[in-house]
Amino acid sequence: MSKSRVAIVGATGYGASEILRLLMGHDGVEVSLLTSESSRGKRISQVLPRFRGVCDRELVPFSLEAVVSAADVVFLAMHAGKALEVAPQLLAAGKKVIDLSADFRLKDPAVYEQWYGLPHSCPELLPRAVYGLPELHREAIRGADLVALPGCYPTSVLLATAPLLKRGLADPVSVHATCMSGVSGAGRSKLGIDYHFPEVDENLKAYGLMGHRHRPEMEQELSLLAGTPATMLFVAHLVPVIRGILSTVTVSLTDQVSQEKLQALYEDHYGSEPFVHVMEPGEHPETRNVQGTNACHLSVTAEPRTGRAILLAAEDNLGKGIAGQALQCMNLMLGLPETTGLRLAAVGL
Amino acid sequence: MSKSRVAIVGATGYGASEILRLLMGHDGVEVSLLTSESSRGKRISQVLPRFRGVCDRELVPFSLEAVVSAADVVFLAMHAGKALEVAPQLLAAGKKVIDLSADFRLKDPAVYEQWYGLPHSCPELLPRAVYGLPELHREAIRGADLVALPGCYPTSVLLATAPLLKRGLADPVSVHATCMSGVSGAGRSKLGIDYHFPEVDENLKAYGLMGHRHRPEMEQELSLLAGTPATMLFVAHLVPVIRGILSTVTVSLTDQVSQEKLQALYEDHYGSEPFVHVMEPGEHPETRNVQGTNACHLSVTAEPRTGRAILLAAEDNLGKGIAGQALQCMNLMLGLPETTGLRLAAVGL
Amino acid sequence: MSKSRVAIVGATGYGASEILRLLMGHDGVEVSLLTSESSRGKRISQVLPRFRGVCDRELVPFSLEAVVSAADVVFLAMHAGKALEVAPQLLAAGKKVIDLSADFRLKDPAVYEQWYGLPHSCPELLPRAVYGLPELHREAIRGADLVALPGCYPTSVLLATAPLLKRGLADPVSVHATCMSGVSGAGRSKLGIDYHFPEVDENLKAYGLMGHRHRPEMEQELSLLAGTPATMLFVAHLVPVIRGILSTVTVSLTDQVSQEKLQALYEDHYGSEPFVHVMEPGEHPETRNVQGTNACHLSVTAEPRTGRAILLAAEDNLGKGIAGQALQCMNLMLGLPETTGLRLAAVGL
Amino acid sequence: MSKSRVAIVGATGYGASEILRLLMGHDGVEVSLLTSESSRGKRISQVLPRFRGVCDRELVPFSLEAVVSAADVVFLAMHAGKALEVAPQLLAAGKKVIDLSADFRLKDPAVYEQWYGLPHSCPELLPRAVYGLPELHREAIRGADLVALPGCYPTSVLLATAPLLKRGLADPVSVHATCMSGVSGAGRSKLGIDYHFPEVDENLKAYGLMGHRHRPEMEQELSLLAGTPATMLFVAHLVPVIRGILSTVTVSLTDQVSQEKLQALYEDHYGSEPFVHVMEPGEHPETRNVQGTNACHLSVTAEPRTGRAILLAAEDNLGKGIAGQALQCMNLMLGLPETTGLRLAAVGL
Repeated sequence: MSKSRVAIVGATGYGASEILRLLMGHDGVEVSLLTSESSRGKRISQVLPRFRGVCDRELVPFSLEAVVSAADVVFLAMHAGKALEVAPQLLAAGKKVIDLSADFRLKDPAVYEQWYGLPHSCPELLPRAVYGLPELHREAIRGADLVALPGCYPTSVLLATAPLLKRGLADPVSVHATCMSGVSGAGRSKLGIDYHFPEVDENLKAYGLMGHRHRPEMEQELSLLAGTPATMLFVAHLVPVIRGILSTVTVSLTDQVSQEKLQALYEDHYGSEPFVHVMEPGEHPETRNVQGTNACHLSVTAEPRTGRAILLAAEDNLGKGIAGQALQCMNLMLGLPETTGLRLAAVGL
Repeated sequence: MSKSRVAIVGATGYGASEILRLLMGHDGVEVSLLTSESSRGKRISQVLPRFRGVCDRELVPFSLEAVVSAADVVFLAMHAGKALEVAPQLLAAGKKVIDLSADFRLKDPAVYEQWYGLPHSCPELLPRAVYGLPELHREAIRGADLVALPGCYPTSVLLATAPLLKRGLADPVSVHATCMSGVSGAGRSKLGIDYHFPEVDENLKAYGLMGHRHRPEMEQELSLLAGTPATMLFVAHLVPVIRGILSTVTVSLTDQVSQEKLQALYEDHYGSEPFVHVMEPGEHPETRNVQGTNACHLSVTAEPRTGRAILLAAEDNLGKGIAGQALQCMNLMLGLPETTGLRLAAVGL
Repeated sequence: MSKSRVAIVGATGYGASEILRLLMGHDGVEVSLLTSESSRGKRISQVLPRFRGVCDRELVPFSLEAVVSAADVVFLAMHAGKALEVAPQLLAAGKKVIDLSADFRLKDPAVYEQWYGLPHSCPELLPRAVYGLPELHREAIRGADLVALPGCYPTSVLLATAPLLKRGLADPVSVHATCMSGVSGAGRSKLGIDYHFPEVDENLKAYGLMGHRHRPEMEQELSLLAGTPATMLFVAHLVPVIRGILSTVTVSLTDQVSQEKLQALYEDHYGSEPFVHVMEPGEHPETRNVQGTNACHLSVTAEPRTGRAILLAAEDNLGKGIAGQALQCMNLMLGLPETTGLRLAAVGL
Repeated sequence: MSKSRVAIVGATGYGASEILRLLMGHDGVEVSLLTSESSRGKRISQVLPRFRGVCDRELVPFSLEAVVSAADVVFLAMHAGKALEVAPQLLAAGKKVIDLSADFRLKDPAVYEQWYGLPHSCPELLPRAVYGLPELHREAIRGADLVALPGCYPTSVLLATAPLLKRGLADPVSVHATCMSGVSGAGRSKLGIDYHFPEVDENLKAYGLMGHRHRPEMEQELSLLAGTPATMLFVAHLVPVIRGILSTVTVSLTDQVSQEKLQALYEDHYGSEPFVHVMEPGEHPETRNVQGTNACHLSVTAEPRTGRAILLAAEDNLGKGIAGQALQCMNLMLGLPETTGLRLAAVGL
């Protein structure tokens, strides 16, 4: 059987180029097109020398025709609002689309408009779009032709809370998430003093307090899990690492749950998941242990004094946070083994 | 008037040597003795070349006689339990003692024993010891001859919450603190794989989940502030910076408090404090802005959706977290202007 | 044909565990044994959670019998002097041995004794041992059963200088190498204040000035390349990165060599090498572009004012510096395609 | 006697704001004016919160009148070419001018034009401008009204080599400097992908190989020291620290010089210098030990095998590299004790 052909639209960003890096180790598909406006005409290995000797493909400007003719699966890594224009045409041409942006994440177009400041031009596609978190929506992803990849923070927070919310063991209006992210989460093109090395290194800060765009997305999925509207408190922090998200999530338990029961519940829930690993009792996740991979490491701790559970989740924001998840979704959409190209030990020591 | 003479017992640790660094810019006292067991006989500038040309004093082994004869004020930087032995004798000799350890922080000797695994050998001194956080106990510190310096985390959490708790505006059993600390908080002598550069850099992790020793200390002071027993949830994190603590504290407001009122309340509460700065609305604290100083930067954000306030506090764990605070207490104890030697712009850019 | 079986002796160190990481993506061999004394009885994924879900093999204590019965190829990652004891027995049992230590690097046992303070107990094996740098000794490696992997610094310095020295275009007593290394080069078990995060981060220093153990090894190979005794000046630096070596090497050119000719010479020399990439004119190597890979990036610059060439080489000290090179040698020794398991894009952004 | 009044033109850059930080601890002058175009109308503590509670002065746009009326001493931190316009007018008004740019460093206006791409509009001032390195030109600085502060790299390289060159003990065409700098050397306004955190952290690279602007400046001063034209090889490196330069300089010794003699020579040469410290034999400089200070730490190592000396120099590029040196020059120009405001222990641990 011939391999599916894959295009990456906007290939030089951090998330997109990480997809390319992972695809270099994936033997079930073939990269057939890389587009870039700013670097058109150059080879990807000239723009990003980390691909020297591994991928020397030329970057071409985006055109619908080129993508349609070259690819069966398309990863879209475009600015907010652009996928709204491109995805409908690709779907019409029978392509499978995996969108890295938020354009199809929010089911309610009004919420999209409120948070992204743009009218949603194709709300009719929203029911068709599947939120690309396989541990929550695996079957839907298998059948989807339009997948909206989750934000990097939501992936970790949702994996941390799903087992409790789904069983009604946590109060859905008590979710409290303080998350730290590496700086690659800000992307490659968003330059400026905020990400200037001398102002980031040796520094800790919170940001987005008055409303981070990942919050509505999380509340949507938390509500789905709980079967009732969820409200969460979310504080994001920027810390001086390149890759990695550590989410410290706490929730009120609706009932007494012992440490042993909590641990067993999570081990059971994620026992057959290839990428979600529950740490042994007493161990806690560290981002270095997932660096460069699609893994999410979790630990669960009951805090009887406050009646809360402390849920820790570590992921690589460019791994399970975007690129790894993108490949996992692609594998499902193409009927390939879900772990193809993703059985990787972490690069962190 | 002759200057007070100051001794530092255990001068080569991070906290103690930071006290020495700050004392080099303090013109109201005179450093008269530095002790060290491990480096006895060497000059401090040989052990710590950052003092080359600034302080070349010889390190001598500790002896009660030497300290008593050389100093009026003594900073004790010793392992847990050692200050219990030394402080009573220094007090008996009429010295003023500022202890960096936890030996005199907890008012209840049983709590001390529970958390530090040692019986408290001089509980009769506990009522005499003052918790060395000037913004909470200024007058008592002025009159004290034994000051127990707070832990680095508690300083930030208590400064963040005091205005609300004192006024009964926050529920004292709802305090939720997730804090990040730089690695110098672990000290200079606690070597090991946990602080080995390749395992710390580019890594994020939580630690001490099942009970961090700073929690009982915080709950003691939170209860005092609230006038009723407080219970808190506390998660500490280790992040790859040398200096700096960022504490993200949230509390349930007992009543609707608008953003404007919250901001005004904090500005009013800390308006005359020389070292606690409330950020302007929309600004948030960053640890680089307090690096090397005794400052604590705070921001306050009302979160009406959850009914909580988000309180952010940044300090240098070696500054307001220990050494700066030590000098601030010393100034108070000696009747010197409180800011002597501490009016410093941060070293971070 | 059945796959060769591979053992790693001393599997939890940084170099050895990086070999394991790379082997997880190598489909031509099978990992059959991992030994560790300190972590015996645990699974590798317990000791190093970066292997969770990828390799859960149990660590067993070393025994000759176990290794002989389990493996065809053995990677030895032991303390200096231990391979001297083990390698002869493994060779006698018909195994192929790849040694990570310096035990078989130096052809002159007296030089070994001088630098490592140990008598060389099996000098008769030295002529049989091949210095495991494929770009210099490919054919010998193919036929070898004992390969001594080069030190991390030498690999970069030798790749940088080989084209000039081999052609007699550089003066072999003029080699001047100032190299920077990430801290993982110090290993996982060599803990201590020198690698304590607060003393390494935000710090730059040189070390080993009076004689770094990699110098005799480099001079041996430089002399072989030049066909005449070479003497070099070598200064190593420790910088706050985890992985990466950047070597800045300069040599006196024996004749006028234009920039164009120099560039062409290197491109020609390395044109068919899969892992050595000569940067385009004006571009220079950066360690992030080789992070996690077996690549070495080079640039060459003629400096007519001083008559020297400036040769820059970047490698991952755990990649081409040890583990990648180990796999490359193994592939050659087993007759597998040389790039098997090593066609990787770098993890650095 | 009334204190001299000081203005900083362009006060928000890294070098300029570091001057302000140091001036906050200088009791011999008074800051009377801070200018900024981009942040005009704001307080310096709003733009740079590290000054909260220490300096809240308003930033005003530059005007000659304002500076002339407010200040006796003026620090100019302007883009290349701007000081050429402003300095003559300030001098005409009787002010003392300390220029941070390269506008008055090079004695030959043709060299200036060649390297900075601008004609030098006031070459008549060049003989009057003194190169602001007190250890080389102390007496001239005392009498100067125009001081051109050296570049950050040249300070370290010149201090490392001066004792040998001045005595004719080193060959002036053999100077070989490989230097590493922290990223603050690139300044606060030069944003871009080159200084974007994810591309700088965990990365090592060289830059400016084909001609760094600090080279002509160094060769000018090296030639003066040697009394004969000097030529040097210079390679600059960018490494992931905020502050700090480590220069590794080697020179050919014209004669056999023993390690003991070399050490004694340097200790003698710098024995009375308050800011240049020669490390004890076997010790080497580390940038953390000079962080935030005006110190330069040196070590000297004879390498008999190659007949060269290895000279290591560590400085804070924002300290002795610019702001500390600026205060040191100011002290000399004003007849104040040279160390006023500069007796500081380093902030690095």
